[in-house]
Amino acid sequence: MDGAVETSPGDETGGGVHRFPAGKGLRLDSGARLEPLEVAYKTYGVLNETRTNAVLVCHALTGDQHAGSVNPVTGRPGWWDSVIGAGLPLDPSRYFVIATNVIGGCMGSTGPASVNPKTKAPYGLAFPVITIADMVRAQAMLVEALGIETLLAVVGGSMGGMQVLQWAADYPQMLFSAVCIAAAPRHSAQNIAFHEVGRQAIMADADWRAGAYETESVRPEKGLAVARMAAHITYLSEAALQRKFGRELQRDGLSWGFDADFQVESYLRHQGAAFVDRFDANSYLYITRALDYFDLAGQHGGVLANAFVKARGVRFCVLSFSSDWLYPTAESRDIVRALNAAGCRASFVEIETDKGHDAFFLDEPLFDGALRGFFASTAQARGL
Amino acid sequence: MDGAVETSPGDETGGGVHRFPAGKGLRLDSGARLEPLEVAYKTYGVLNETRTNAVLVCHALTGDQHAGSVNPVTGRPGWWDSVIGAGLPLDPSRYFVIATNVIGGCMGSTGPASVNPKTKAPYGLAFPVITIADMVRAQAMLVEALGIETLLAVVGGSMGGMQVLQWAADYPQMLFSAVCIAAAPRHSAQNIAFHEVGRQAIMADADWRAGAYETESVRPEKGLAVARMAAHITYLSEAALQRKFGRELQRDGLSWGFDADFQVESYLRHQGAAFVDRFDANSYLYITRALDYFDLAGQHGGVLANAFVKARGVRFCVLSFSSDWLYPTAESRDIVRALNAAGCRASFVEIETDKGHDAFFLDEPLFDGALRGFFASTAQARGL
Repeated sequence: MDGAVETSPGDETGGGVHRFPAGKGLRLDSGARLEPLEVAYKTYGVLNETRTNAVLVCHALTGDQHAGSVNPVTGRPGWWDSVIGAGLPLDPSRYFVIATNVIGGCMGSTGPASVNPKTKAPYGLAFPVITIADMVRAQAMLVEALGIETLLAVVGGSMGGMQVLQWAADYPQMLFSAVCIAAAPRHSAQNIAFHEVGRQAIMADADWRAGAYETESVRPEKGLAVARMAAHITYLSEAALQRKFGRELQRDGLSWGFDADFQVESYLRHQGAAFVDRFDANSYLYITRALDYFDLAGQHGGVLANAFVKARGVRFCVLSFSSDWLYPTAESRDIVRALNAAGCRASFVEIETDKGHDAFFLDEPLFDGALRGFFASTAQARGL
Repeated sequence: MDGAVETSPGDETGGGVHRFPAGKGLRLDSGARLEPLEVAYKTYGVLNETRTNAVLVCHALTGDQHAGSVNPVTGRPGWWDSVIGAGLPLDPSRYFVIATNVIGGCMGSTGPASVNPKTKAPYGLAFPVITIADMVRAQAMLVEALGIETLLAVVGGSMGGMQVLQWAADYPQMLFSAVCIAAAPRHSAQNIAFHEVGRQAIMADADWRAGAYETESVRPEKGLAVARMAAHITYLSEAALQRKFGRELQRDGLSWGFDADFQVESYLRHQGAAFVDRFDANSYLYITRALDYFDLAGQHGGVLANAFVKARGVRFCVLSFSSDWLYPTAESRDIVRALNAAGCRASFVEIETDKGHDAFFLDEPLFDGALRGFFASTAQARGL
């Protein structure tokens, strides 16, 4: 392992921030180079002697490396504590689970709030635009630095699922299996449109200061909150919102004003307010941009199957949620069709749920069963 | 006709701003009273001697009275120039078409930018919160002032359709027929959520000044543009966005920055920028609030059919668009079921189109045919 690894003593889990040594920066799709390069990560469980039980977990747009343990910023449980843990599909007594913070993020990996070596000030908009492939390249460097040649699985939902697909395209030789959840092979016009609304909301905030807010000791909190609110609607189904909130009021009767009269308004405002406490506005710009640029077929001559021709040895599992309108099941079917066309083995399950895109964060029995079954059979096939 | 009516000499169409005399203010659902009261309107065609050919057109959230003629603010054709005009479903040679600007609006009817008689300054947030029923009450006062006892039809799409439903509930004796297009009997949790995003975007703008921007000679243009962008996505179907824009770029290659790389980004930015030139931010707050408060069943003991029990003599036509996800067909079906339960005669057509909610603004042959057929049979039934 090259570079220094910080671990948190007293924490049952491992990880820290991996600093790549000078000269080992990240080559980016834009042509730029990111150096110094740091990748923050957490691990759960122990790498076995044959180094065959490592599972890389990739996070979604606003996720982080704290997938299976308490998030130190929010004090809340890890975002995938329904999947990673004793007795859960990714049980650390069996698997060595690695979760990283994507580059461009704001939880320790090099991102727009990191110090720009040229100016000794935070990058801000001088940070290079990154891609999903760049994120994956940094992850592959970390996996290699951890001494792992082959991952038992790479798994993720939403943007995490896109990273999974990119892994399969770029590093198939490092994968035994790949689990792509609630994702799409490219961002649609509607996906881009919603992200553009979020970016414009941030940039409209007078405290954004053309991205230099860190230097000026302000934060575009209102704009970031609006961005989050708009995005959050796309993570839930219309039916789930109706079931959860309907037209229920916060108080007896209407306010006849612009307070949060309806519970759904209060809920959304809370989502916005809680988000700005844990997330960086420029990271939001860069990561949404990476998503919008994502087009796996576009990277392979317009033919999605071409992305997977070297991944014939990888066992794929594709999962979608019936009420996900952000990345609808049809997009997962496109992935499965391309995998089939490329001669890959792929199982596909559409989970019936009204909980929308964010169902992969939730305790959904059918989803739990699908993950559990796939990981168990994969481990068996790997001889674990 | 009481009150002064301004007409535009040289204009083929009629209308102007109707100022109700002192003492004839508007009683509002909130308990407040709006006085002085002005209602801006346009007319197309001539009221016949029996006063039986009047059709009231109700506009959507950001519409106005310039339904069938050039909008003097934008210089662009009227928003319903595919429906109102020679040879079109509402031909002014046959019908006397009236279109008003809703109260709370910003095109001449009393709204938050109007002068508050108490302060002699623009109302701003001192403007009372209004409802769809308040809008309709003002329209009914105008119709009466124009000397019309019974409307041949009241017709509108989206918020216009909600006004149509409210007309049927509150003034059935003034209606011969009612055409409700792409509407819903109440705002859903998701509808409220999207509106709340728009309101928060406006209020997040430092130039909003707690609604007093008019007094301070600024305008919350960035916030209003973001609100419009978010809302605009909901007016189009995912399929239409994909067909129109897909992932097409503005230029050759990506910018690797935050310019509008994709055509859909550029389109949305244009929608935002064009909107702020013609619309008032506070009006946006008030009208979205009126929509969120709309719940016709809630007004009638929780039973939608109760809203229509006095409307058994009214001929209803309910139209929806198959790809409308803002007010999906299921909501129109709810309306039809309630009309049937109340014993009303209602025809219902779901128009197959991928153009989404905004299809009612567009030249859709099936939609045109449905409107044409309904108005023709209604006119015949009325003996015109």
